[in-house]
Amino acid sequence: MPESIKDKIAIIGVGCTKFGDNFDQSFEDLLAEAGFAAFADANIAPERVDAAWLGTFSPYAGNGKASVSLADALRLYGKPITRVENYCATGTDAFRNAAMAVASGMYDVALVAGVEKLKDRPMRGLGWEGGHPYQHDGLTAPGVFAMVANRYFHRFGGGREALAKVSVKNHHNGALNPKAHFQMEISEEQVLKAPIVAWPFGLFDCCPTTDGAAAAVICRADMARQFRDDYVLVKGLGLAVTSGRPWYDPAYEYVGFAATRAASEEAYRMAGIHDPVKEIDLAEVHDCFTWTEISNYEDLGFCGKGEGAHFIGEGRSTLAGDLPVNPSGGLKSCGHPIGASGVRMIYEIVTQLRGQAGARQVRDSELGLVHNLGGPGAVACVIVLGR
Amino acid sequence: MPESIKDKIAIIGVGCTKFGDNFDQSFEDLLAEAGFAAFADANIAPERVDAAWLGTFSPYAGNGKASVSLADALRLYGKPITRVENYCATGTDAFRNAAMAVASGMYDVALVAGVEKLKDRPMRGLGWEGGHPYQHDGLTAPGVFAMVANRYFHRFGGGREALAKVSVKNHHNGALNPKAHFQMEISEEQVLKAPIVAWPFGLFDCCPTTDGAAAAVICRADMARQFRDDYVLVKGLGLAVTSGRPWYDPAYEYVGFAATRAASEEAYRMAGIHDPVKEIDLAEVHDCFTWTEISNYEDLGFCGKGEGAHFIGEGRSTLAGDLPVNPSGGLKSCGHPIGASGVRMIYEIVTQLRGQAGARQVRDSELGLVHNLGGPGAVACVIVLGR
Repeated sequence: MPESIKDKIAIIGVGCTKFGDNFDQSFEDLLAEAGFAAFADANIAPERVDAAWLGTFSPYAGNGKASVSLADALRLYGKPITRVENYCATGTDAFRNAAMAVASGMYDVALVAGVEKLKDRPMRGLGWEGGHPYQHDGLTAPGVFAMVANRYFHRFGGGREALAKVSVKNHHNGALNPKAHFQMEISEEQVLKAPIVAWPFGLFDCCPTTDGAAAAVICRADMARQFRDDYVLVKGLGLAVTSGRPWYDPAYEYVGFAATRAASEEAYRMAGIHDPVKEIDLAEVHDCFTWTEISNYEDLGFCGKGEGAHFIGEGRSTLAGDLPVNPSGGLKSCGHPIGASGVRMIYEIVTQLRGQAGARQVRDSELGLVHNLGGPGAVACVIVLGR
Repeated sequence: MPESIKDKIAIIGVGCTKFGDNFDQSFEDLLAEAGFAAFADANIAPERVDAAWLGTFSPYAGNGKASVSLADALRLYGKPITRVENYCATGTDAFRNAAMAVASGMYDVALVAGVEKLKDRPMRGLGWEGGHPYQHDGLTAPGVFAMVANRYFHRFGGGREALAKVSVKNHHNGALNPKAHFQMEISEEQVLKAPIVAWPFGLFDCCPTTDGAAAAVICRADMARQFRDDYVLVKGLGLAVTSGRPWYDPAYEYVGFAATRAASEEAYRMAGIHDPVKEIDLAEVHDCFTWTEISNYEDLGFCGKGEGAHFIGEGRSTLAGDLPVNPSGGLKSCGHPIGASGVRMIYEIVTQLRGQAGARQVRDSELGLVHNLGGPGAVACVIVLGR
């Protein structure tokens, strides 16, 4: 039987750039800002880092490079640096690999950085490494998720009004987050009247295209107190990959994502969580589209399948609710610089667990969850963090 | 201090496709062939695999995908699969991350697969994810390595005749390897008379463009005997990244690769190796160009800086020498499907350590080394394997 690595890894520093249209910062500038912010937060010199992991989905699209860009940005020369890419779960999976390496005993202190620069060039064709196969089929991200959302509403009822509540909530939270790309409140009416991108998604149901970077410094938990008292422990890690062609599978349910269920099961098992809605105090989940957040409530076990619209309708995922979701404003407000997003979510949960989240602070938070979903809903990574 | 993970991970199965112009196999076909060969070699069902790592540099260029392609090729649905990319050290770094994860206790059994399909589309522009920044500067791979080779010969003397000896040796070995792309002997005269690609490299100084995949099944060493008696242990792991812009660094020596020196130091420290040329019995090293192999002899500590031409000239790295290098035929004969190469080298060393390498068998081999070098010589990964 594998041994648990619960409580063996501590997060001792986090950093994050302002997310947005960062035309004045290069790929490496973004990494330098987030990385040095994390070093300063951990109060360590870069030399203390034994190894690093870089999460980036399409570095060349941002005129960056892979592992060598992190070496050049932070002058981490001669050290081990791995690039991890796992669709939109790139940032969280980079963190997961770094955490396992530290837990193995191979390294004492490691850096995880996530970055993406998406505004300089259009993603289609160039950005997607020569054209992504899905897009050759016309299956853009909004197209894929819209198909599943339509099927979901066909089966369980409801529609765009439920989606609008997610968008309003996340824009409300984002207005309180100085790192968010969009820091503005919107109304349900604005969401419902916005131009349609792919039915049922209008403009305010889709996360924007954004530049940004985030970083975290981790170490062996038994060393953490050398650096700070309010370190955060890794309680659970889970990753799951399903088919890249879900629509060819006759058993595919088309109303949620098996990858999220499998990844959360692995993470909950490691963390010893039996009743997530009661035990988890707050969550950053992957709201690439508003409906995805509703599906995530269900796939993560916060409520039953088909009950996600009630979950948001009852206000349970608002800042004042019993399980605040996306207190940062989510991908909807922060934007989604792909490799950066998962690490930015870790930054948010660590900031919240330390009680440093200012106007968007979730009260009495002890246990937080981070969730990324990538590809056509085929890749999910779940990380549980706690005090 | 970090704890050593030496002898905590065992390789219990390996598989490899024929390397070559595999137009009749898709990206996923290649993964399926190598993966199921490794499962059969380990005598385990795919269900026994707890997690997987995929090494691939430019999957979309081969009309493949990232982690989801491995899930689809091997029906590894609902399991954790990470894609690692680290330039030409992609395959070895994927193995390194898998090994650390198993050593952490997180998983009992893991699969590592490396794959690249390079023949379908030209690499320039398309394959390099929208055009690689180096190529925008005119710095192709032959151009970068040729510059360093010229500087090396300027400083230490010698020239194309030393390079030809590497090519002749590796083609000799490749002619004995049924997996190699080119299975043919060549003469020094043929190498020296071949068309020049980038001085001092002629056609036979450059590795070819190739399709292929390779895979390895690893497990906790204390479980290995359940699967087979002749398992191979991971003795050392090292990875190092230097600057992606070495030519901007006034201290850059331009006669070798600091990344290889740093990665081998890390791996030797873990393996407890003090005198590599005496302790290591055979090595698979990164001969993307013939001169790179000469530099590797020096950077890996097989001989002093500037002595590499003597090392090959004295026949020490031939199959009958005291430290056979690239018994497989190297990248020169096998080709270099980027993400596959490092795992193919692991396949070769495991096959050799088990005594199953047929006509190219190195006698009395107990300890073998694998080495990849990537980017502009900026990324190196070294793995030491032993009985």
